[in-house]
Amino acid sequence: MTVEGKLRTAIVGSTGYGGVELIRLLQSHPKVEITSVISSSSAGDAIEEGFPHLTGIIDRRLDGVDPAQMAERADVVFTATPSGVSAKLVPQLLEAGLKVVDLSGDFRLKDGSEYEHWYKHPAPADEYLEQAVYGLCEVFGERAAGVDFISNPGCYPTATLLGLIPAIQAGWIKHDSIIIDAKSGVTGAGRGTSLMVHYAEINENLKTYKINKHQHIPEIEQTLTEIAGEKVTVTFTTHLVPMSRGIMSTMYAGMKGNYTDQDFVDLYREYYAGRPYVRVRDVGVIPATKEVSGSNYCDIGFATDARTGRVTIVSVIDNVVKGAAGQAIQNLNLMMGWEETLGLGYTPVYP
Amino acid sequence: MTVEGKLRTAIVGSTGYGGVELIRLLQSHPKVEITSVISSSSAGDAIEEGFPHLTGIIDRRLDGVDPAQMAERADVVFTATPSGVSAKLVPQLLEAGLKVVDLSGDFRLKDGSEYEHWYKHPAPADEYLEQAVYGLCEVFGERAAGVDFISNPGCYPTATLLGLIPAIQAGWIKHDSIIIDAKSGVTGAGRGTSLMVHYAEINENLKTYKINKHQHIPEIEQTLTEIAGEKVTVTFTTHLVPMSRGIMSTMYAGMKGNYTDQDFVDLYREYYAGRPYVRVRDVGVIPATKEVSGSNYCDIGFATDARTGRVTIVSVIDNVVKGAAGQAIQNLNLMMGWEETLGLGYTPVYP
Amino acid sequence: MTVEGKLRTAIVGSTGYGGVELIRLLQSHPKVEITSVISSSSAGDAIEEGFPHLTGIIDRRLDGVDPAQMAERADVVFTATPSGVSAKLVPQLLEAGLKVVDLSGDFRLKDGSEYEHWYKHPAPADEYLEQAVYGLCEVFGERAAGVDFISNPGCYPTATLLGLIPAIQAGWIKHDSIIIDAKSGVTGAGRGTSLMVHYAEINENLKTYKINKHQHIPEIEQTLTEIAGEKVTVTFTTHLVPMSRGIMSTMYAGMKGNYTDQDFVDLYREYYAGRPYVRVRDVGVIPATKEVSGSNYCDIGFATDARTGRVTIVSVIDNVVKGAAGQAIQNLNLMMGWEETLGLGYTPVYP
Amino acid sequence: MTVEGKLRTAIVGSTGYGGVELIRLLQSHPKVEITSVISSSSAGDAIEEGFPHLTGIIDRRLDGVDPAQMAERADVVFTATPSGVSAKLVPQLLEAGLKVVDLSGDFRLKDGSEYEHWYKHPAPADEYLEQAVYGLCEVFGERAAGVDFISNPGCYPTATLLGLIPAIQAGWIKHDSIIIDAKSGVTGAGRGTSLMVHYAEINENLKTYKINKHQHIPEIEQTLTEIAGEKVTVTFTTHLVPMSRGIMSTMYAGMKGNYTDQDFVDLYREYYAGRPYVRVRDVGVIPATKEVSGSNYCDIGFATDARTGRVTIVSVIDNVVKGAAGQAIQNLNLMMGWEETLGLGYTPVYP
Repeated sequence: MTVEGKLRTAIVGSTGYGGVELIRLLQSHPKVEITSVISSSSAGDAIEEGFPHLTGIIDRRLDGVDPAQMAERADVVFTATPSGVSAKLVPQLLEAGLKVVDLSGDFRLKDGSEYEHWYKHPAPADEYLEQAVYGLCEVFGERAAGVDFISNPGCYPTATLLGLIPAIQAGWIKHDSIIIDAKSGVTGAGRGTSLMVHYAEINENLKTYKINKHQHIPEIEQTLTEIAGEKVTVTFTTHLVPMSRGIMSTMYAGMKGNYTDQDFVDLYREYYAGRPYVRVRDVGVIPATKEVSGSNYCDIGFATDARTGRVTIVSVIDNVVKGAAGQAIQNLNLMMGWEETLGLGYTPVYP
Repeated sequence: MTVEGKLRTAIVGSTGYGGVELIRLLQSHPKVEITSVISSSSAGDAIEEGFPHLTGIIDRRLDGVDPAQMAERADVVFTATPSGVSAKLVPQLLEAGLKVVDLSGDFRLKDGSEYEHWYKHPAPADEYLEQAVYGLCEVFGERAAGVDFISNPGCYPTATLLGLIPAIQAGWIKHDSIIIDAKSGVTGAGRGTSLMVHYAEINENLKTYKINKHQHIPEIEQTLTEIAGEKVTVTFTTHLVPMSRGIMSTMYAGMKGNYTDQDFVDLYREYYAGRPYVRVRDVGVIPATKEVSGSNYCDIGFATDARTGRVTIVSVIDNVVKGAAGQAIQNLNLMMGWEETLGLGYTPVYP
Repeated sequence: MTVEGKLRTAIVGSTGYGGVELIRLLQSHPKVEITSVISSSSAGDAIEEGFPHLTGIIDRRLDGVDPAQMAERADVVFTATPSGVSAKLVPQLLEAGLKVVDLSGDFRLKDGSEYEHWYKHPAPADEYLEQAVYGLCEVFGERAAGVDFISNPGCYPTATLLGLIPAIQAGWIKHDSIIIDAKSGVTGAGRGTSLMVHYAEINENLKTYKINKHQHIPEIEQTLTEIAGEKVTVTFTTHLVPMSRGIMSTMYAGMKGNYTDQDFVDLYREYYAGRPYVRVRDVGVIPATKEVSGSNYCDIGFATDARTGRVTIVSVIDNVVKGAAGQAIQNLNLMMGWEETLGLGYTPVYP
Repeated sequence: MTVEGKLRTAIVGSTGYGGVELIRLLQSHPKVEITSVISSSSAGDAIEEGFPHLTGIIDRRLDGVDPAQMAERADVVFTATPSGVSAKLVPQLLEAGLKVVDLSGDFRLKDGSEYEHWYKHPAPADEYLEQAVYGLCEVFGERAAGVDFISNPGCYPTATLLGLIPAIQAGWIKHDSIIIDAKSGVTGAGRGTSLMVHYAEINENLKTYKINKHQHIPEIEQTLTEIAGEKVTVTFTTHLVPMSRGIMSTMYAGMKGNYTDQDFVDLYREYYAGRPYVRVRDVGVIPATKEVSGSNYCDIGFATDARTGRVTIVSVIDNVVKGAAGQAIQNLNLMMGWEETLGLGYTPVYP
């Protein structure tokens, strides 16, 4: 803690979209002070060179990646680093006595053997996989209290799991019937340059990618399996939508009974009672992505269909906030025993 | 026929997006002459007042809706009119001896009792429902030869049916397992003004609408049922994507066997052999909407999944061309016994 | 004041983009409580029916337009009403003893005879035109202290005047040489429906409107004339850009001397010293609209050109914040003698 | 000529946006056959790997850059290559006896000394600069007849020069008063990847670039100077607009007399009489970029202002068509003595 009594915080990956959103949100967190913004690629630069919108807001040069220095300057580190980088860096930070919220996928899977298949690189040591608490706040929030290391959920898994878990826990849907048609804005692909994210290739275009091969599949299945008490396998498709922010997960499942829209609304409102960042919409109201943009909300709506015996569940988040930086801060709040909403009281920006 | 030996054509609904696309495409059709552009709301105006891009291309004032006048001036009429309007107008045109290609939904369903439920207005007389040939060119093209009246398929049904029919006919997928997650650009909603299509409400936003209630559901089920030989019921969701043109239909079905991507590619290439406007993509290649933009193509790709026993089929069209004006002209070509591709040789506009 | 010691605030026009942005921003203002959200067209509705993003944030039904009721419930009223409506409503509110910040154009021009020409409706009574303080905060901020009635500047004039005034006051540019090429996102046109703002008409399109006829011209000229001490007439063009938020004003003027970029940066930094919401960029750095999105900043950059003897000045704002709701709150802060930045500490949302 | 009597054509740079547009347009040219598509970076690949929209349309592998091979296979070569590459390649092609239409900027400036300053690389040999005919079709079309080598104008110069030349030639505007505020869609930046063209950096953003430094400035000034008969210097600003295609040039100039909108319309219609691809709009009608999208049109509108004595001229083109591939084909037609419109009869794609 600094003299002001604020928690000293470092952000690794401050030149990516997740990192810069952490800066935006933490700027107004009443108990946190940013003491280091870190980038391996741009160390030494003023942050406003890469992000001119921060001109005059955070006058700070980017530090390099140096765990010893972080241990001196910070109490907690957010690692918004690419998969593979966190796997190596996070253990060093933990050894140095730092608290860590990791935004990569490197510590989300409990079974290390899954990494080679889905992430194409080796898993971190098992002890770290075990230590990492999977920080899906509205489901596992109580596990976060007092721990030193949170693995922050992926963007697609956040929208998807919050949309499916109450129904699975209630035993209302058939485990082998789950189909997830997910759509994301382009920030989900990161700030790296490639033809895939060239404006003229995305604009006025809708495309799929990684059908049945996305690395978020095992993360979703791992948690659904835990909730269901039996192995759950899902069909999962991802689409790239011509917009910057937002994820919509449109989910289909066969129902085990004749449930109505009202039944689902009631079930979910009970499950999420007291959790301010999940908004279960009224019967007949399906959320759109812009209705949560810039905020930490996950909004959920339902359409049951007696003709087919299926329910369609629609869940939306801002992928950069609830799907990354916002949930990471929510996790920090839970780790520290603070109010869950601290520094996250953003009304969605509309339009 | 006029002295030049061209077919005289009238377009009703020339101030909508479907009508104006008919004008664009018919301008370069070698056997057709546009002799009347018709609008009930803007009769008397120069067409370039509402559509300045046509300045100097088609110097013509909009005519009113007058079947007798159409019978004098035209041999064939395209009715790009709202649902409910065609139901009344088309019988008059047919009685006047005109050939008709109707782009509304008013004559697509064979069972008149479905109209009240899905379209919220009464059905046309049964004799016209019977007379109307459902013009899904690559499936029912031979039925169009020589007839006087074509009911042009809807945009969603075109993409969806072309993506599902070969698999259903082959008996490869389970009829009760079909889920269709469809996405459309905003032109699909027409040129009428409403808050729903306000730029600031659509831009940087993704929303659903009419889940399980879209009027294209009975059209899809009617044709799938005919092909399957038993009643087929589908789950069908529609999304509005921030783009002007394009439909993607992402379809999920349980497979009855262990089919591979290659099996599907082979099956579909055989089914669509000789049909130039369906492009079955290579194994592993999934089409994006921009790859057919401005053209009459329907592109299809596959992702089978041994883990879940399901296939994901992705079908894309330009909703204004293959989903409306282009297929209507393709139907005209088939009616007249002309080459199917006449006036439709457009390379997609990319990017 | 209510028991909590907060200023009670009413917002008229809560179903427009300006009104809903006032709600977003005032939600986090530490000294303000929203006690009434008002709409003439939707009185009685829950606000979340028209703006679902506010679900669970502001649980309040819309009130009708009733000055007596406002006087009971509020201390200050923001009128985010169309031009012509404010002209009638504001005098009633002032007579009822309310403080008013008016976001319409109805009280910005001091010469009432201008209204018929530019606004096509009669001017309000002269006494109100005289009473209204033109609230361009960084220029006339000291005039706002303690007054009851602020006329909030227009979006284009805010960006334009902040970009031109220091150079004019310094006598560096020729008064008869000023050309303003302004560009706006679509929210500037309001939430009303029309073909002009139909998504498919705006998307992938760039158009001009009201060249030399925009009602913001006399507002700009009035203030430039006051600063210059002689009549200033400008050329002013407005463009509609396919984006929701943001204004860029690209301004051209002949220089009276051989000034450099550095000279301009120094001059403007001195002029705006101590004003946190104008960011004068470094030499060679020109701001883009997204760099102020969602925030109250106005960013300014310069390109002098020795070849032509002209300077190009680029000024950007978020039209809904600094061009409307944000500056209105900044004006409230100045009226009340509060810190200028209260409730406005938003970091731009990027990307 | 091949047996079919068609002109054999090679396209160098077939993996860029200009090259692929040449393919789209030449596909329907009645007197041209594409015999080689060439790319230095992707030689050996099927063209549909990089451009899936061409699947089934042009079944051809990309050739490498080999002048001898081109001379065997083709009669004319379009070089849609980056600046600096054409400078080296084109002389070899001309020596090999090929006709060339060069789409780069390497042969547009007659004064070789300008290249180092504006293009940052050396000029080609003077003999080629002299040989190159600057192919601004509607102004210098007669110079193209029968020549072997055309330097195709830049996108900004095409829109700008067509908008200014008639007024300059008539002596209606002051030569030292010309200010050009130009805006372009993102295809103008090419298909190369960079942070500047990342979707999330362009979307919902408007930015300037290269103010007073753009390499199209000397090209514009060279031609205006020729027309004016005295040195003309312009102020020129470029903006990047969140759209794929389209350029708008908004031009300002002081008038030498009291000309009206009607005067300008009449003057320009007379100047462009018989030139089908310039559409001078009616009085009071200003063109928007989408109104020429996908077509070879340049549309022009005017707003004179008696208050300021200035005229605002707005000129729009599709930068990929009239600003690149379309005008290149128009030049080919003129070189060959063919009808100017051959293969270019595209109606704009709207919306």
